[in-house]
Amino acid sequence: MSLQVIRAVEPFRSATSLLWKFRPRHLKSVTSTCNNVYTFNFANKAAYSIKQVAADPIVTETNCKSENATAASKESITNPNWGSKKNKRKVRLHLTDIMSNPEIEAKLAPLRAAVLEQGNLVRELKVKGAPEIDVKRAVAELKARKKVLEDRELELTPSVVTFDRSKMEDLLKRRFFYDQSFAIYGGITGQYDFGPMGCALKSNILSLWRQFFVLEEQMLEVDCSILTPEPVLKASGHVDRFADLMVKDVKTGECFRLDHLIKNALEKLSKEKTASAELKAECEDIVIKLDGMNKQEMSDVLAKYNIKSPLTGNDLTEPIEFNLMFATQIGPTGLVKGFLRPETAQGIFVNFKRLLEFNQGKLPFAVAQIGNSFRNEISPRSGLIRVREFTMAEIEHFCDPNQKNHPKFESIADTRLTLYSACNQMDGKSAQQISIGEAVRNNLVANETLGYYMTRIHQFLLTIGIKPECLRFRQHMNNEMAHYACDCWDAECLTSYGWVECVGCADRSAYDLGQHTQATGVRLVAEKRLPEPKTVEVSEIVPNKQALGKTFKKDAKTITDALSKLSINDVNDVEQTLKDKQEFILNLENGSEFKLTPEIISVKHSTKTVHVEDITPSVIEPSFGIGRIMYALLEQNFQCREGDEQRCYFTLPSVVAPLKCSILPLSNNAEFNPFIRQLSTALTKAELSHKVDDSSGSIGRRYARTDEIAIPFGITVDFDTLKEPHTVTLRDRDSLKQVRLGIDEVIDVVKNLSVGRVKWSQILEKYPVFEQQEATK
Amino acid sequence: MSLQVIRAVEPFRSATSLLWKFRPRHLKSVTSTCNNVYTFNFANKAAYSIKQVAADPIVTETNCKSENATAASKESITNPNWGSKKNKRKVRLHLTDIMSNPEIEAKLAPLRAAVLEQGNLVRELKVKGAPEIDVKRAVAELKARKKVLEDRELELTPSVVTFDRSKMEDLLKRRFFYDQSFAIYGGITGQYDFGPMGCALKSNILSLWRQFFVLEEQMLEVDCSILTPEPVLKASGHVDRFADLMVKDVKTGECFRLDHLIKNALEKLSKEKTASAELKAECEDIVIKLDGMNKQEMSDVLAKYNIKSPLTGNDLTEPIEFNLMFATQIGPTGLVKGFLRPETAQGIFVNFKRLLEFNQGKLPFAVAQIGNSFRNEISPRSGLIRVREFTMAEIEHFCDPNQKNHPKFESIADTRLTLYSACNQMDGKSAQQISIGEAVRNNLVANETLGYYMTRIHQFLLTIGIKPECLRFRQHMNNEMAHYACDCWDAECLTSYGWVECVGCADRSAYDLGQHTQATGVRLVAEKRLPEPKTVEVSEIVPNKQALGKTFKKDAKTITDALSKLSINDVNDVEQTLKDKQEFILNLENGSEFKLTPEIISVKHSTKTVHVEDITPSVIEPSFGIGRIMYALLEQNFQCREGDEQRCYFTLPSVVAPLKCSILPLSNNAEFNPFIRQLSTALTKAELSHKVDDSSGSIGRRYARTDEIAIPFGITVDFDTLKEPHTVTLRDRDSLKQVRLGIDEVIDVVKNLSVGRVKWSQILEKYPVFEQQEATK
Repeated sequence: MSLQVIRAVEPFRSATSLLWKFRPRHLKSVTSTCNNVYTFNFANKAAYSIKQVAADPIVTETNCKSENATAASKESITNPNWGSKKNKRKVRLHLTDIMSNPEIEAKLAPLRAAVLEQGNLVRELKVKGAPEIDVKRAVAELKARKKVLEDRELELTPSVVTFDRSKMEDLLKRRFFYDQSFAIYGGITGQYDFGPMGCALKSNILSLWRQFFVLEEQMLEVDCSILTPEPVLKASGHVDRFADLMVKDVKTGECFRLDHLIKNALEKLSKEKTASAELKAECEDIVIKLDGMNKQEMSDVLAKYNIKSPLTGNDLTEPIEFNLMFATQIGPTGLVKGFLRPETAQGIFVNFKRLLEFNQGKLPFAVAQIGNSFRNEISPRSGLIRVREFTMAEIEHFCDPNQKNHPKFESIADTRLTLYSACNQMDGKSAQQISIGEAVRNNLVANETLGYYMTRIHQFLLTIGIKPECLRFRQHMNNEMAHYACDCWDAECLTSYGWVECVGCADRSAYDLGQHTQATGVRLVAEKRLPEPKTVEVSEIVPNKQALGKTFKKDAKTITDALSKLSINDVNDVEQTLKDKQEFILNLENGSEFKLTPEIISVKHSTKTVHVEDITPSVIEPSFGIGRIMYALLEQNFQCREGDEQRCYFTLPSVVAPLKCSILPLSNNAEFNPFIRQLSTALTKAELSHKVDDSSGSIGRRYARTDEIAIPFGITVDFDTLKEPHTVTLRDRDSLKQVRLGIDEVIDVVKNLSVGRVKWSQILEKYPVFEQQEATK
Repeated sequence: MSLQVIRAVEPFRSATSLLWKFRPRHLKSVTSTCNNVYTFNFANKAAYSIKQVAADPIVTETNCKSENATAASKESITNPNWGSKKNKRKVRLHLTDIMSNPEIEAKLAPLRAAVLEQGNLVRELKVKGAPEIDVKRAVAELKARKKVLEDRELELTPSVVTFDRSKMEDLLKRRFFYDQSFAIYGGITGQYDFGPMGCALKSNILSLWRQFFVLEEQMLEVDCSILTPEPVLKASGHVDRFADLMVKDVKTGECFRLDHLIKNALEKLSKEKTASAELKAECEDIVIKLDGMNKQEMSDVLAKYNIKSPLTGNDLTEPIEFNLMFATQIGPTGLVKGFLRPETAQGIFVNFKRLLEFNQGKLPFAVAQIGNSFRNEISPRSGLIRVREFTMAEIEHFCDPNQKNHPKFESIADTRLTLYSACNQMDGKSAQQISIGEAVRNNLVANETLGYYMTRIHQFLLTIGIKPECLRFRQHMNNEMAHYACDCWDAECLTSYGWVECVGCADRSAYDLGQHTQATGVRLVAEKRLPEPKTVEVSEIVPNKQALGKTFKKDAKTITDALSKLSINDVNDVEQTLKDKQEFILNLENGSEFKLTPEIISVKHSTKTVHVEDITPSVIEPSFGIGRIMYALLEQNFQCREGDEQRCYFTLPSVVAPLKCSILPLSNNAEFNPFIRQLSTALTKAELSHKVDDSSGSIGRRYARTDEIAIPFGITVDFDTLKEPHTVTLRDRDSLKQVRLGIDEVIDVVKNLSVGRVKWSQILEKYPVFEQQEATK
């Protein structure tokens, strides 16, 4: 037995993969401690402890103890039950509108006041133009107070349902919705493979997304390259700014994400028996403020508390900025550096001219793209929420920066959304329910287009099964905006991990198009017809080519080039300088300097009549993280049957459910087979995905199996089916009710139910209820 | 002007991107020569020649000559017309059954005899067990003769239609079906972005594929990670064997794909005036045999003809094997090497156990995956046919190696396919039309499952619009099979590049599962119930733990581990050796040696009764290259209107056409608007993608624009629409015919036409023909 353990901890086997070696019946439990030590306990009292390095997907250190060897070593596992960690959490789902309860409000009032006080301080500092460092510090304190308030809010919210994450994770693994990639090789953290059910769910969500956005909004959908050459991502800012802070163990080279490391270290410190109340408060304060700290501040914390590697106790390096993009080389020379794209958006921006032309030069238009992006997270965690490879669905809506109204806004203006504005966040207030029409009128949401997309995002998420009480739009505060954004609202879904950003809806303004224009010299602009033609003055620098060439030889071209790029203001400056000093010093980026005299260049003025002006469009970007949406959806739809905690299921709406229908013969009687085949063929023809379960379990057990994979409807063939007229039963997953109906009408009924044309309640009214089978379980 | 050219040829700007600098009206033509020199000729007689390095996406050398500078330098391009190269090719589409023409057959007879003669020689050498090098040489000659025969066959085939590739490419670029990625940054060869029309076409093909395979065949669809850790691809053989040969310029480091380089060099050599007839024949012979040459043979060619860098004349390195996978690092440590997957298949194999369990342990079952794969081609070319990033749709059908029959085979057995067997290829015969039932009965196709999938591939390709006369299945000859395959038939589509492999259909046998089992120790097998229980003898080595531990200390575990891995035969050997010599020397892979005596180990024999046996399933793999299929589809469906060569269109079937319908107001009369809106809303509700073209062109011009993007049906709103009962006209792209019908019935008609429920001929019979509008063009 111990042999197997030894083999499994060679480089590239993660601790969890050990379990592939054992049959689950031998495995009693798996426990893990905060130091990433997993203990596997077996029925025969054997126990193994394995330590896993937190910041890296490889097991590098092991510590195996065997009390008793078993004979199971060569058996392979068919049903690993390793999701059952001890950290079972009961989570209260959130009701957004809790303001109505005065008792709760009374408890929250002092916390709200504390946030408001700090929010006002931040505002005051900004108005006064206080040093940036002071503002940042005040904002960090503001965030800390906000967090305390939010935690307390969640705590006091009336409990809707309790949720057991480990139970759901166990089901997701067992029925292969998704699971860690390359598990037989030890797995890679932050990478997941979607099995048949997860893949079908994802594919149904994306297909609905296409219908909801691309088809209904007449968007242009594109499909761009993943491998992206460096200059593109240099221009977009990702090469310079898309980084997280980490530290390395100076001896072993292990990497740790800095904020996680400090958090773990201080939490451990404050739990020590010798820790004073003062130290505890200090640690807690730092942990809360970590999110807003910069490199130097975190470095100071490291030094102050003398934080070492949690694995070896070795010293750590100074914080290092680690770029989160995966680098590779394109082509065989090794000279063309490329990255896996960190977002799909850039592919759209670099195609802007082609897309504008496809739209016959007209603004506004929206471009959509579904595809994978990649981020080399230092220490991925939280399941599908923070991963290294993920599917995004992004929309870039290009419009005139001065015309952000939307023709279809009126049609959705009355929709009520839950908005958590930056202002409310600073004032210690809750999110508020408000119609989007009112929100735009009050300038809470900046413009109709942004409001229209927020509403469509809201509608889409509800359609796929996100619960309205677990959905809110949170506005970014000034200091948390990405480098490209000028306003941003996140659609956040409530999960057991807290509120998770699932869809971003940002106004990227003209940032990206401007950056690519600057980098390439290709002007990414649209032409806008002027209300009436206007006459403009043109100033340009005219070089005296002969004199220029004679003076500067091979540099002449560089100079002309640089001069041609000057703005009108620059040209005027040059003219003034030439006049005043009889020379102008041209400084180039590469450090070279050229003295130009009036003999070499002159400034020419002229006028011309123009009918159009070039504008750089603004971009509104709704960006969907499909994995996160799937996770929130699964969690919010996970339920257990009343009175039977072991029978769990997902209440996914049929429109996204992986399979629409099951076909179950009551028993393995051969007479049922022709009917099973007939039904399966008919469902296929109606394009309804389905699963025949003719395995030997009882009908109740098989119903439970179909519930686990969220199949909304089940057709059962029983002995009455054999009689004429042939009938079957149809069962509804959520209500557990069944009706009896003709085999010739059941397909149409399932089709209509699946696409939402009829409701189950209508079916219950139309057909006789059937009650026998469920009892047989 | 010349400034612009200089700027454009900085590193990372390809020659073609120069054209982004000019308006097309200034550009008269672009010509290119075989040395990758492009000459851009402008209306004002300016001309620029730019040399591009063939093997690399970067322009590194330029040679700009300007006869006349223009003022267009600052203008940006809106409609680059740069597809119009001079190498216009007329291509004859192929009729597969040409055997019936005795005149043609007479001309082909000597060529067929030559192939047969060589095929027999190859067979003879194999039977005799001749040295591998001799067989390889004979096979290369066989391939050369086959190529001569095939070229002549194509040449003699009656011409069906002529095809002008540059005209099609121009249209594909102009209407942004797809185009080079990152063009404003100079572009990357071998990477393409799909614009709205290409993306919709691709998405429709994939959606149909899902319906055709996943839904109808009840496959398990999965979605696995792209980033793959090295050990996985080491096991699959890709790390060691997935490489192409290249050479480098010893001074500049430029890379050249070796076979391309030799071909270009010898073709150039044989065109020189001084070249003797003998030299010409020699060069031609080598070029034909290049495909089958190994590293040493190619190296000899380089030396013999003293081939230098075509760009600099510098010496070249010896041939280097360049692995075609993109490498990167996973996680921050830099220690976990990963690759972008070169095929999607491995993701399925490493999930085999989960998938088998999902299928309740039963064989056979099929798993499907759609996703992107990556190959770092040395010099990508031929548009979508050889690219660095591409979408695949793969199926892995797992079955008992002894039960490769298929339950649905009878239903398709009468389908006639065009098969080009290895045997026919060696005998100099043509492909033959034969029913798949007969092919399997005759062992031409190895088994029913392979035959079933070939037929389904055939049906799928015809459904999306591949022409039956341009489709054949070619069997791989022994020597061209991939390292993992034991039989393989390629679905090849005829294009202007010749027959192009679009779908591979390989029997990978147990290769991959075996490799991953070996690498991980996780046995990727299925249990097969034995007809009756059997008793088996078990021999195992039992170590005396105490003695072992005492003698070898910390090596004891390594030894026990190594012993437990021995096969039954090995164990018997150990027993014999122990008996004969009273010791057994255990040699480990790492070079260490241990002397084991009968005191330390003994061999124990026992028997046990088993009811099941473990089998490693065979894998049949249909693998679709979506980009290649799209290219072949576009080419085979590209047409020009009779008598008007400028009006080109695609006859794509409506099921895959990017948009199903256009809505055109006859003029910009405001009275039409409510009807346009009504139709658009109704089409959206019916889930029919469509485009409103209310631009100012004549109706004929706008029809032509919709034809270009393959819209099959067009609804026109005209003055008669305003009258009650409101009517519109409906136009069919392919026949150009129109009917008049009620606005309330047109949506249903378009829906039924789009999904293939009715045919246009039926619509023509039912509604009055309308003839007025097309005339107004």
